[in-house]
Amino acid sequence: MLNITLPDGSQRQLPDGATGYDVAASISEGLARNALAVTVNGDVRDLHRPLPDNATVSIITWNDTAGKSTYWHSSAHLMAEALEALYPGVKLAIGPAIENGFYYDVDLGEGRSISSEDFPEIEKKMLELAKNKSRYERKEVSKADAIAYFTEKQDPYKLELIDGLEDGNITFYTQGNFTDLCRGPHIPDTGTIKAAKLMNVGGVFWRGDANRQQLTRVYGITFPKAKDLTEYLERLEEAKRRDHRKLGKELKLFAFSEKVGAGLPLWLPKGTALRERLEQFLRKAQVKAGYLPVVTPHIGAKELYVTSGHYEKYGADSFQPIKTPNPGEEFFLKPMNCPHHCEIYKTEPRSYRDLPVRFAEFGTVYRYEQSGELHGLTRVRGFTQDDAHLFCRPDQVKDEFMKVIDIVLYVLKALDFNDFTAQISLRDPENKAKYIGTDENWALAESAIIEAAAEKGLTTTTELGEAAFYGPKLDFMVRDAIGRRWQLGTIQVDYNLPERFDLEYTAADNSKQRPVMIHRAPFGSLERFVAVLIEHCGGNFPLWLTPEQFIVLPISDKYSDYAYQVKAQLEQHDLRGTVDGRDERIGRKIRDAEMGKIPYLLVVGEKEAQDNIISVRKHGEGDLGSMPLADFVKSVQSQMVEAM
Amino acid sequence: MLNITLPDGSQRQLPDGATGYDVAASISEGLARNALAVTVNGDVRDLHRPLPDNATVSIITWNDTAGKSTYWHSSAHLMAEALEALYPGVKLAIGPAIENGFYYDVDLGEGRSISSEDFPEIEKKMLELAKNKSRYERKEVSKADAIAYFTEKQDPYKLELIDGLEDGNITFYTQGNFTDLCRGPHIPDTGTIKAAKLMNVGGVFWRGDANRQQLTRVYGITFPKAKDLTEYLERLEEAKRRDHRKLGKELKLFAFSEKVGAGLPLWLPKGTALRERLEQFLRKAQVKAGYLPVVTPHIGAKELYVTSGHYEKYGADSFQPIKTPNPGEEFFLKPMNCPHHCEIYKTEPRSYRDLPVRFAEFGTVYRYEQSGELHGLTRVRGFTQDDAHLFCRPDQVKDEFMKVIDIVLYVLKALDFNDFTAQISLRDPENKAKYIGTDENWALAESAIIEAAAEKGLTTTTELGEAAFYGPKLDFMVRDAIGRRWQLGTIQVDYNLPERFDLEYTAADNSKQRPVMIHRAPFGSLERFVAVLIEHCGGNFPLWLTPEQFIVLPISDKYSDYAYQVKAQLEQHDLRGTVDGRDERIGRKIRDAEMGKIPYLLVVGEKEAQDNIISVRKHGEGDLGSMPLADFVKSVQSQMVEAM
Repeated sequence: MLNITLPDGSQRQLPDGATGYDVAASISEGLARNALAVTVNGDVRDLHRPLPDNATVSIITWNDTAGKSTYWHSSAHLMAEALEALYPGVKLAIGPAIENGFYYDVDLGEGRSISSEDFPEIEKKMLELAKNKSRYERKEVSKADAIAYFTEKQDPYKLELIDGLEDGNITFYTQGNFTDLCRGPHIPDTGTIKAAKLMNVGGVFWRGDANRQQLTRVYGITFPKAKDLTEYLERLEEAKRRDHRKLGKELKLFAFSEKVGAGLPLWLPKGTALRERLEQFLRKAQVKAGYLPVVTPHIGAKELYVTSGHYEKYGADSFQPIKTPNPGEEFFLKPMNCPHHCEIYKTEPRSYRDLPVRFAEFGTVYRYEQSGELHGLTRVRGFTQDDAHLFCRPDQVKDEFMKVIDIVLYVLKALDFNDFTAQISLRDPENKAKYIGTDENWALAESAIIEAAAEKGLTTTTELGEAAFYGPKLDFMVRDAIGRRWQLGTIQVDYNLPERFDLEYTAADNSKQRPVMIHRAPFGSLERFVAVLIEHCGGNFPLWLTPEQFIVLPISDKYSDYAYQVKAQLEQHDLRGTVDGRDERIGRKIRDAEMGKIPYLLVVGEKEAQDNIISVRKHGEGDLGSMPLADFVKSVQSQMVEAM
Repeated sequence: MLNITLPDGSQRQLPDGATGYDVAASISEGLARNALAVTVNGDVRDLHRPLPDNATVSIITWNDTAGKSTYWHSSAHLMAEALEALYPGVKLAIGPAIENGFYYDVDLGEGRSISSEDFPEIEKKMLELAKNKSRYERKEVSKADAIAYFTEKQDPYKLELIDGLEDGNITFYTQGNFTDLCRGPHIPDTGTIKAAKLMNVGGVFWRGDANRQQLTRVYGITFPKAKDLTEYLERLEEAKRRDHRKLGKELKLFAFSEKVGAGLPLWLPKGTALRERLEQFLRKAQVKAGYLPVVTPHIGAKELYVTSGHYEKYGADSFQPIKTPNPGEEFFLKPMNCPHHCEIYKTEPRSYRDLPVRFAEFGTVYRYEQSGELHGLTRVRGFTQDDAHLFCRPDQVKDEFMKVIDIVLYVLKALDFNDFTAQISLRDPENKAKYIGTDENWALAESAIIEAAAEKGLTTTTELGEAAFYGPKLDFMVRDAIGRRWQLGTIQVDYNLPERFDLEYTAADNSKQRPVMIHRAPFGSLERFVAVLIEHCGGNFPLWLTPEQFIVLPISDKYSDYAYQVKAQLEQHDLRGTVDGRDERIGRKIRDAEMGKIPYLLVVGEKEAQDNIISVRKHGEGDLGSMPLADFVKSVQSQMVEAM
């Protein structure tokens, strides 16, 4: 008999040779039907492989990330089978699962190519093959047999891959007529693949080496239900509509200029208004929470980074040092703000009574990214962190952590991010040598984070070994309105920099002690955060944040004076907006204002001017009728109060 | 007879051979007594030289900058005479007037030196010689005679200087027993030199070349009255007390760190509060005036500066380019914000109806200064300009200029700078080739500036030939509380960058036209402005601006709760301050608060807590008695309203 432990800690006995499927079936018939794979002591494995004794086993379905990933990897094999059928002699390189779907890099042979016009035929073939419900059969093979098989198949890529493998450690998977060199695991059979869509095709080099063979990379995605595919494609369309690069241009929020340089955003007036309001919102919350704003330069001398340890990490792939007329003198664009803040800490002696001190700065930093990796505002070469560094006593870590969590929650709520989890990254207890700081401090900091997160009622996941070498951390993973996950706010404990900068405070017993440092950034970077926010709200920013809350649209020039009166009165109530004073027809003005996603369109003509009222249109909702200004102000203000 | 025109335009006839002194005497006996020199058609000349016919003449006294400068240059000769008497064989290099006083670079000969202990003896000798009322006699000499004279005197420095002069253009000046190679002019005689003080001594290299002889530079200053010297020394003492580097440290406003780098200020929390409030104050005024805040990166690609023309000006004395992994790619720390703003202008088509557009940015720029030239916040390597660039039609220049003047006046008034003049810098009409832009545009811009300044009632001086090559400008010269002059706000017209960046707008007739660009910065740079402001107000910032307006001082721990209540109530009225909650005696708390130059010290004890009042001490004024909070709030608020 086998002893199996389930994720909830309960135990089951099963006959020798029992598989993951048997475990699933022993739990419920539905689970067995939906099971795609199994984890055995944390490793994902085929559902139908016999289990070892005394294992902890959990059943993986489509709802698990590992389930999707296994499913898509198996789908890559299915696509390869289809390609072999349609393009005889095709040679295969590698075909992994990716975040959404999978790809396979293939060598079609001289003179052959695949374009999107060929996609339907391949998809059709895949679904035709899937209907056979072919099992993914695992087979251990010797290196010699593996070489023999692919030599016969004349596939140089697989042969090169086998060359790097150890004998005794090589497996093949076969479904239908197709056999691949593969470590697995796979789903039980092709029968669950009910919808397939090829997404893209492009050229890549074998092993990323521009001197080697160019291959064709075919991207695809599959689903267990046709409806899932439809929804996925709709979500993709929605993501395109919400693409911050597109909306950023349409709403005139930011721009890039080749002359200024790729990855270096120019914030246009409306984007600047948005950004400054975000900064102001956070600055206010931070000052209330006892943070002290500071300002530091965007460069630092080499000596600063030698001390911080960044210097040795600068390499050929970074922005290079800035030399000066003074031989040997070098400055660096700052990659982070912490070294500067450590120097501020050192400007005066600190006592245990002074701690914590919390230095906050919207600090702009520069990091070189390859131009191919740049992407709108999410991947840039210069960005502004909503940075702060808290210097506290070890006994204050938990309390400070809880206060930082409060600020992060306040930010997420104000910006309508309501779906998030917190990831706690701890030290790998098996490999303590990797980390700096004493066991005592780590124990203190880790339990401080765990307790702080629990007391704040966060939904958390815990990752062992994911801590930075200098301390444990907590990251906020946020799901946006169309289901994508983003890592936003981060809070990190740091034992390293206080050591390197020889920071100290005088303890109650007059001894010199090291403060603990906490790095934290609720937005992460303003650039990336604004990008995520644009896509989250589709450019319809929360009312308190949006650059223009209203626009007054006079029906004709005759009502222009009244329009400006309306604007002035609203401004007295701290609302902001403009007048569309152009000589255009009202239909055009409304259309343009809707395009600009301005929340309230206030149409004024003869009746409105006479009765001292406005006709209100809400963006995306339409006509709200006419009303006195005071009613409008009250309604808008109450919405803003609610949001905060 | 000579025809002489006076500065007021009136004419006088004087006999041939008449001198400036005769002109002065013809005006008044007092003027003749005080006359030090004369300007003839704009050039300063000796008072006793015969005048040419048809000249415009004005009499120069101690009250003129040129009068002081001539007086101090003559005093340098007097000091040289004293040094020759006291240090026989001393060799003389050069001895010019400087802003305050004069220096002479001398070669004392092997084994001799001067220290501050020797100053009294030299001063005594100077005054002794001065009493002789020796005339400064001018004599034209041939190059051969000049060489002969200094060869005999064995002065290699004068010989080297003569070597660079043209024959026929060489003059000597002699007073008493001392003769110097000198272009002049000088004051009539040494009799007006009544007070002398040597200020400093140091080493310099002949001609600034570290490979040549080291000389001793002796600094001195002289005055026509002993009282003037006393006042000057007091002003120096006061300037020392107000030194922004000293106060910046004491008030914890900013700091420098060797690791971060010389000339790169770290703004501490209180300095940041000050700086951010200044920014906020100006931002608000600018937004009201229709400026659009933007944000741009602190670096720009080479191509940007090739376009702007800055690239060719980068040299070995600048911050060197930032290279990247991409061969040939180079970025530069931005030396100014205008090129970035030009690129923002280009992000969309502009119509004549859209102009002016005004982009404002608190933009941080970096310029390499030699470490010896760095000085606190007034001379740094990284600074933030309160920059804006206005793009307008040529017909809008005057109106825009007037609006900018309004903002500058608003800033100066709010910060108690009440003594200032405006310098209008125009093109040199004799040398138009130096400038770019059409005659028509220059005429338009120059008259726009002149008219705008006149209509705003500014006291102006006009300097021909002081315009930038790209356009005329207006600078504000401000006198601080202890009489020093600073160039602060600047407004400049620019025809160059719109051309280089090919900026355009569509005119009413649909043709493409170039906008005119106006650069302007009321503060100049925040760093320099804060430095000047600190010294102007001696660290006693205007109430609306000061980082902490009040501090509540509980007499003992028992009244701590009440102290925090007071603070909370004041904060509700938008006043800002802290509680000194330390376990210290009240005398110490008051002393520390006075040291910190906090305007209001609110002492609370039993009586205050009982009656719900506060005892108010005003910094520098002392006890104001006790009063209810409401009275205090009203008084403070009314002071702030008055100031703005």
